[in-house]
Amino acid sequence: MQGLIMDYQLTIPAILRRAEQLFGDREIVSRQPDRSIQRYTYGDCIRRARKLGVALKSLGVGRGDRVATLCWNHYRHLEAYYGIPSSGAVVHTLNLRLHPDDLAYVANHAGDTVVIVDKVLLGLLEKFRERAPFKHVIVAGDGSDVPDGMLDYEVLLSSVQNSDDESPEIDERAAAVMCYTSGTTGRPKGVLYSHRAIALHTLASALTMTLDIREADTVLAVVPMFHANAWGLPFTCAMVGAKQVCPGPHLDPKSLLELFESERVTISAGVPTIWLGLLQALDAEPRKYDLSAMRKLIVGGAAVPESMIRGFQERHGLSIVHAWGMTEMAPLGTVANLSSDMAKESKDTQYALRAKQGLPAPFVEIRARGEDGLVEWNGNSMGELEVRGPWVANGYYDASDSGDRFTEDGWFKTGDIVSIDAKGFVEIRDRAKDLIKSGGEWISSVALENALMGHPAVAEAAVVAAPHPKWQECPVAVVVLKSGQSARPEDLTTHLAQSFPRWWLPHTIEMVAEIPRTSAGKVQKSALRERFKGWTATDDPKAD
Amino acid sequence: MQGLIMDYQLTIPAILRRAEQLFGDREIVSRQPDRSIQRYTYGDCIRRARKLGVALKSLGVGRGDRVATLCWNHYRHLEAYYGIPSSGAVVHTLNLRLHPDDLAYVANHAGDTVVIVDKVLLGLLEKFRERAPFKHVIVAGDGSDVPDGMLDYEVLLSSVQNSDDESPEIDERAAAVMCYTSGTTGRPKGVLYSHRAIALHTLASALTMTLDIREADTVLAVVPMFHANAWGLPFTCAMVGAKQVCPGPHLDPKSLLELFESERVTISAGVPTIWLGLLQALDAEPRKYDLSAMRKLIVGGAAVPESMIRGFQERHGLSIVHAWGMTEMAPLGTVANLSSDMAKESKDTQYALRAKQGLPAPFVEIRARGEDGLVEWNGNSMGELEVRGPWVANGYYDASDSGDRFTEDGWFKTGDIVSIDAKGFVEIRDRAKDLIKSGGEWISSVALENALMGHPAVAEAAVVAAPHPKWQECPVAVVVLKSGQSARPEDLTTHLAQSFPRWWLPHTIEMVAEIPRTSAGKVQKSALRERFKGWTATDDPKAD
Repeated sequence: MQGLIMDYQLTIPAILRRAEQLFGDREIVSRQPDRSIQRYTYGDCIRRARKLGVALKSLGVGRGDRVATLCWNHYRHLEAYYGIPSSGAVVHTLNLRLHPDDLAYVANHAGDTVVIVDKVLLGLLEKFRERAPFKHVIVAGDGSDVPDGMLDYEVLLSSVQNSDDESPEIDERAAAVMCYTSGTTGRPKGVLYSHRAIALHTLASALTMTLDIREADTVLAVVPMFHANAWGLPFTCAMVGAKQVCPGPHLDPKSLLELFESERVTISAGVPTIWLGLLQALDAEPRKYDLSAMRKLIVGGAAVPESMIRGFQERHGLSIVHAWGMTEMAPLGTVANLSSDMAKESKDTQYALRAKQGLPAPFVEIRARGEDGLVEWNGNSMGELEVRGPWVANGYYDASDSGDRFTEDGWFKTGDIVSIDAKGFVEIRDRAKDLIKSGGEWISSVALENALMGHPAVAEAAVVAAPHPKWQECPVAVVVLKSGQSARPEDLTTHLAQSFPRWWLPHTIEMVAEIPRTSAGKVQKSALRERFKGWTATDDPKAD
Repeated sequence: MQGLIMDYQLTIPAILRRAEQLFGDREIVSRQPDRSIQRYTYGDCIRRARKLGVALKSLGVGRGDRVATLCWNHYRHLEAYYGIPSSGAVVHTLNLRLHPDDLAYVANHAGDTVVIVDKVLLGLLEKFRERAPFKHVIVAGDGSDVPDGMLDYEVLLSSVQNSDDESPEIDERAAAVMCYTSGTTGRPKGVLYSHRAIALHTLASALTMTLDIREADTVLAVVPMFHANAWGLPFTCAMVGAKQVCPGPHLDPKSLLELFESERVTISAGVPTIWLGLLQALDAEPRKYDLSAMRKLIVGGAAVPESMIRGFQERHGLSIVHAWGMTEMAPLGTVANLSSDMAKESKDTQYALRAKQGLPAPFVEIRARGEDGLVEWNGNSMGELEVRGPWVANGYYDASDSGDRFTEDGWFKTGDIVSIDAKGFVEIRDRAKDLIKSGGEWISSVALENALMGHPAVAEAAVVAAPHPKWQECPVAVVVLKSGQSARPEDLTTHLAQSFPRWWLPHTIEMVAEIPRTSAGKVQKSALRERFKGWTATDDPKAD
């Protein structure tokens, strides 16, 4: 027997109707390339987004067609986020930090027929445009000097006379947003979010137990809109009516701190690299900015060392909320909020918990698989995290090799090695491919990295596996020291020996000026492994 | 083009898997008929719920079959809420305040083959059992003296050896919960919630902008579990991991206040009648109970007079949150939380706003239709509220006359006459059938009632239409005075004249000892109209 309930479709247009009707006068603020501030409202934004949809139709964009963006975070990019899926097409956010060869590959693989590009990114576009399938290039900028053969975004919008009642009926399972993984291995792979996935992700990620985003909030997403659906924030903010602040191309600590202060930002969100820079800037000038409005800094994309959480909290009164997700998950997976029980624990225990990945969002289900099947939830046993849920991908776009990422019973294999405690709190111990297998035992590179970064002289650290004649693999580390600080490798080894068994200790620790990172700010472990390919183990801590 | 996202089903079992895995040791506390307190955990509850599902199958209950409950709020009723839908059957909550004739009608109409009945309600069951289609009667109680031919709930559960892996795959559109409207006119009508409707209602009603229910909360639903899906609270609490307190049959102010204090309740929820009694009890003994844990009292089911909101806030520091919903909406429609703009208004304005019905929940869409089509959102124009959304009914179970409640384009006609302001804030001005149409103009009985209840001597008030030879209808009022207080009708008329035009003023105001109410605590306006049938208008304020 079926329920007797309306067949209401969970779509992006439904979210936007709400935002326009209830929060039409809430602000959206953007920093432009020339550093000037542009302000308008959700009402303005959504009306223009509808016009964009109509204009794209006049260019021949039909249902399901992909429209690419090559843009920083700003109001026109938001209009693309809202307007393209609402017109029935698919918005495909190109990652401007990819190599032009990869951009050409991705645009062709997705079959993007139109691209909206920031005027300040035309130089990047030129590097791959000839190899891309774009029939139309729409330039988002100040309207001056639009190259021949390209369209000006504003001229295009002003050509639309009437955009009322242009929203088509959309099935909730239709594709809405496309985003490629910036995979460290192999070609980028395309993930295709449905309207339903985004609508449910929006509901779930606004909850107090996840990201807790409210109408009264002012949200600045440092996370680029070309990364993992901008963590869903453009949609979550629209649903709850939160003010949005878009930083444009100016992502340096000073520019961000200025915006935090001037716009009274209450929530910001970004990858650890961004917050590392910000923490250093705040440490250098501790009382320069009034950040009293800030409720929390959401960190995701890579694990946050506990020392960074402590640094923000204890030195600047700023709360880090640690989240974990993946492009394949739209992207929210887990959030490390403290439960009422955990809030009764000691401060140290609380910090340790906040450095973990936390509890799954509602309707995200988790399990971990070791070599002998599913592992126990005891906070100790390690296994690869598998997930399922209503916003988790079930395959990659036009891909022949999705299969190895999905289990036979339909769960997604995340590639993250985790332990899960008895209450479902997840801790990522490593990426599957970064795990160090030494003498048949697993060593967590993430645990060693976090401990190294807990040393007062260490700014950043990375640990990878190097070949070892006896133990097959052994851990080795590279470390960036804080400016003006010094430490010898043996000091760091002594520091680590307080927390780990001797056989976990890195066989060498090298001081470096910089750690190689991917376009998403993640440590590029493949480059580090390359560095240690020819290295030969000389000592053997396990023998001690 | 479809999205590439898992076809994950939004079901009650998905919510329960989460509750069991993540919040298995959170408490559920019940007051039993003998006033003793029973405590156990979500883990216990969900394991027993699964056993109940298996036991029901052994009694022949199959997919989609209706299993009735005739119970107060307690842990076994929760097990029925969780276990029956998880087994693929439909839980049908019988309203124990209905007349036995109506209970017999409803049980037959629904086709309930099994009933779970509180031992203390066996007397009520006997009044209609012979006319009901129950093949099995399961008695929930202390296990003693179960009548011949009936089953004891605990004996039944203990007969189940193994309930693991018994959860069937359930389609999200399958029926899960059935609830009849306690309509003041005509026969009760059956509403049939799907798993999807409940899952989405659960997500939406936990949000900060709606009911804001969190893991750290302790929730006591005074609203009976046989009313409107218990406002979804059993499911919302399970999803977020909130502790639940069930008051059993003891709903008097003293019993509730004791539980609020002893269990450190943070959120309670019920109809205005309950809170009216509670306010009087608190006023009588203002500092007797420690209610410092209480975050808010959610009020729904009928409009709350502003004076009650003020009374709780100013005299006892307790926050009323006003919500509006309907059985046909699972039931959440709107909540009167103050937006960031409203929070800057004067105290008086804020109280006035909190006495309205507020903003729709996400994915609930609203509009109001007057005699000349949809009315403007100006806070003034009145029309019948129409809604649509993913948890709104699209018809009644096995009913021939659902049609007049649904528009041609698929919206539900609520029967409430509202105005909507420019920001979407809803105010219920009247029930369509209670609206007073005087000389071609509409008079809101709700506005008059609220103003009457704002008079210091008035405890309760109701206003209905009486026939009038000149104006067709005119307003007349009945008033219950607070004990020990006195006021003459002309005092109350003078009081009303401060806020309303003369032609709105009641043509007579009668003092009564009690106002007739329906089983859901709503004023029974039909009985009042009956009272004034033979009444003759003698004065005519409009002529002044």
